[in-house]
Amino acid sequence: MEQTVILQLARQAKQATLDAANLTTQQKNAFLKKAAELLRENISSIVAENQKDLAAGKQKGLSSAMLDRLMLDDKRINEMAKALEEIIHLPDPVGDVVKEWARPNGLKVKRVRIPLGVILIIYESRPNVTVDAAALCFKSGNVVILRGGSEAYHSNQKLVNILKQSLQTQKLNPDMIQFVPTTDRESLYYLMTLASEIDLIIPRGGPSLMQMIREHAKIPVIRHDKGVCHLYVDGEADLAKAEKICINSKVQRPGVCNALETLLVDEKLKDSFLPKLLTKLQGLGVELRGDQEVQKVGKNIKPATDTDWDTEYLDLILSVKVVKGLEGALDHIHRYSSLHTEAIVTENKAKADRFIRELNSSAIMWNASTRFNDGGQLGLGAEIGISTTKLHAFGPMGLEELTTTKFVVIGEGQIRE
Amino acid sequence: MEQTVILQLARQAKQATLDAANLTTQQKNAFLKKAAELLRENISSIVAENQKDLAAGKQKGLSSAMLDRLMLDDKRINEMAKALEEIIHLPDPVGDVVKEWARPNGLKVKRVRIPLGVILIIYESRPNVTVDAAALCFKSGNVVILRGGSEAYHSNQKLVNILKQSLQTQKLNPDMIQFVPTTDRESLYYLMTLASEIDLIIPRGGPSLMQMIREHAKIPVIRHDKGVCHLYVDGEADLAKAEKICINSKVQRPGVCNALETLLVDEKLKDSFLPKLLTKLQGLGVELRGDQEVQKVGKNIKPATDTDWDTEYLDLILSVKVVKGLEGALDHIHRYSSLHTEAIVTENKAKADRFIRELNSSAIMWNASTRFNDGGQLGLGAEIGISTTKLHAFGPMGLEELTTTKFVVIGEGQIRE
Repeated sequence: MEQTVILQLARQAKQATLDAANLTTQQKNAFLKKAAELLRENISSIVAENQKDLAAGKQKGLSSAMLDRLMLDDKRINEMAKALEEIIHLPDPVGDVVKEWARPNGLKVKRVRIPLGVILIIYESRPNVTVDAAALCFKSGNVVILRGGSEAYHSNQKLVNILKQSLQTQKLNPDMIQFVPTTDRESLYYLMTLASEIDLIIPRGGPSLMQMIREHAKIPVIRHDKGVCHLYVDGEADLAKAEKICINSKVQRPGVCNALETLLVDEKLKDSFLPKLLTKLQGLGVELRGDQEVQKVGKNIKPATDTDWDTEYLDLILSVKVVKGLEGALDHIHRYSSLHTEAIVTENKAKADRFIRELNSSAIMWNASTRFNDGGQLGLGAEIGISTTKLHAFGPMGLEELTTTKFVVIGEGQIRE
Repeated sequence: MEQTVILQLARQAKQATLDAANLTTQQKNAFLKKAAELLRENISSIVAENQKDLAAGKQKGLSSAMLDRLMLDDKRINEMAKALEEIIHLPDPVGDVVKEWARPNGLKVKRVRIPLGVILIIYESRPNVTVDAAALCFKSGNVVILRGGSEAYHSNQKLVNILKQSLQTQKLNPDMIQFVPTTDRESLYYLMTLASEIDLIIPRGGPSLMQMIREHAKIPVIRHDKGVCHLYVDGEADLAKAEKICINSKVQRPGVCNALETLLVDEKLKDSFLPKLLTKLQGLGVELRGDQEVQKVGKNIKPATDTDWDTEYLDLILSVKVVKGLEGALDHIHRYSSLHTEAIVTENKAKADRFIRELNSSAIMWNASTRFNDGGQLGLGAEIGISTTKLHAFGPMGLEELTTTKFVVIGEGQIRE
């Protein structure tokens, strides 16, 4: 696609930021309500567009997992509509006074929440991201540019049309939600250089997307990167809790970034607790890869290579290692952490405190499942993803994390001496 | 310089982050106190190294302004030491619990401040940045990599040696403060790609430095970019305040980023207030560039070109424009703002509120000088600079802004259903 078309789109987005920043909460919620209605009214035409993507996907030989992510039906479209309605109930962060104080010279100073401006969301095959991301950006006063994957092109375009229709019926600026009408790589590379128009890129996707963005982006990026999440079962753990947490972290939904990938077990537990746990995991269909100690006490355990310790399986596979107590666990995690989620199970508070203090991943869990590192679960409301970038927002990003603050300074003629 | 040497330095920095994050406040303050002492004890040897830089600078034909920025003497070294002592009194942000809440399932959730990790500071000729930046990064638990300009190389190296000596006497890991022992461009380009080792780049410098970083950085950057600061004098202003604020904003220290660059005056004031103000400014040595209206009512006023509206003069030069009330002022600022500082002088609260609401620069001033957009003046304590990047920290960056937060989740065996 011509660069001028892409530039024009980005400029329209920037132009619309003033309108977006000045929307009232009522306007935002009316838009969300209408969009949910329109989604429900248009189920059959959404499904028809989605069928085009599915047919093309099958022809291209997409895996059944990918086709499943892509697929939209009654139930999923209703879930999208419901997600919009849930965002209505979240507080509007724009205009919040985060802090307020006075200076000795009488100046009043406030830090006030404002939108970031224009946010470019780059994502892969899930069409629900189109609706979720647009709604979260909208509610936080931002203009969104949506650039989905080629597999979901028809579905995404249809969904954006519905969102734009909701803008129209509310007599709002249609440029506040932008859709990139192409999925060619060159256009994306160019878009990622438009630093004067775009304030932030949020990519959601796999390693090759992340690498591509690292290479081409000239704009701030908040990465939603992989989670090689660790669970350390300490010698002083409550073993019933440990088993429950381990199984939940690995098995409840293995395909997501806060699922467990590496289990570390205190050597004190290697002959008692560990073999039983390994058997249970295998009974639940988990493939195990272990170090020598683990291979000794378990059956049918493949050797874990150095690559395993570094891998986000996103599948029913778990790497397992016996470590020398807390120290050994910390050493391993410091070496292989992806800064996503680390958990400890222990009844010893001093050990838990050290684990919490020394590890600076986005979420540290004590006696709780790794699966709780999630905006909804932690009480942030809906989330746009889980940031593994330390800057700006580390961990789950809700509406507040899609804003920044400005200083407002109110004087009575003060000057600097 | 060999890439392996640069990589080694960055890896040492990353290795040291654990030590830095776990320093006690007492250790940090003892280091700062000792460093201040050592600076005072070493004045003559610092001056001797600085003389080498000054001599080379003169030979290279640096401007007198640049030589002045570079120059260190008794007074300036004492000021550096005093700055270190002031940082002792600032609260340590690491470990602060920013927020704390409980979930319906009993999970306790906290957001706890943690250091960012490794911060690369890229700066130009002022050697005091070496000491200020190292101290602020240290107090906020970060490891710093200092990469100063070639003009100040000997001065910077000497100052870093003194800081490292203070680390040594306190028996602290010397790798927590890193100095890039070369100023060649290729090494810097390489350093800016080391995303696994470095968490953040903070550049402080002019447009060519900013451009170079935009082109080469593969790591998050918080830009401390130019301030094209605006002051709008409204028809309903208290004119005594307006005059005082305008003069202070432009003249008190014209070479800094929060100094006024463009004055916008309501057309209602163009025949009364404006001509007198123009004469006063000229009397203070300010060169004026104006639109046609301004040229009509003043004397010796050069025409302002489109470039002027976009220029950070950093000098006793001011561009002046007559605008159609608040609307005209907002239009101009929306078009030319650098997102740094905008000020309004008016007694009309509704107009001030609109100005504050519609402009999303890092600081918005009502009846106060633009010069107050400064960490010290706004009560943040010392600042590492003024961010014009909306992400993470917008406006003055103090110690808190050099940290991020992690989620700490404390359970009693909770799992996700």
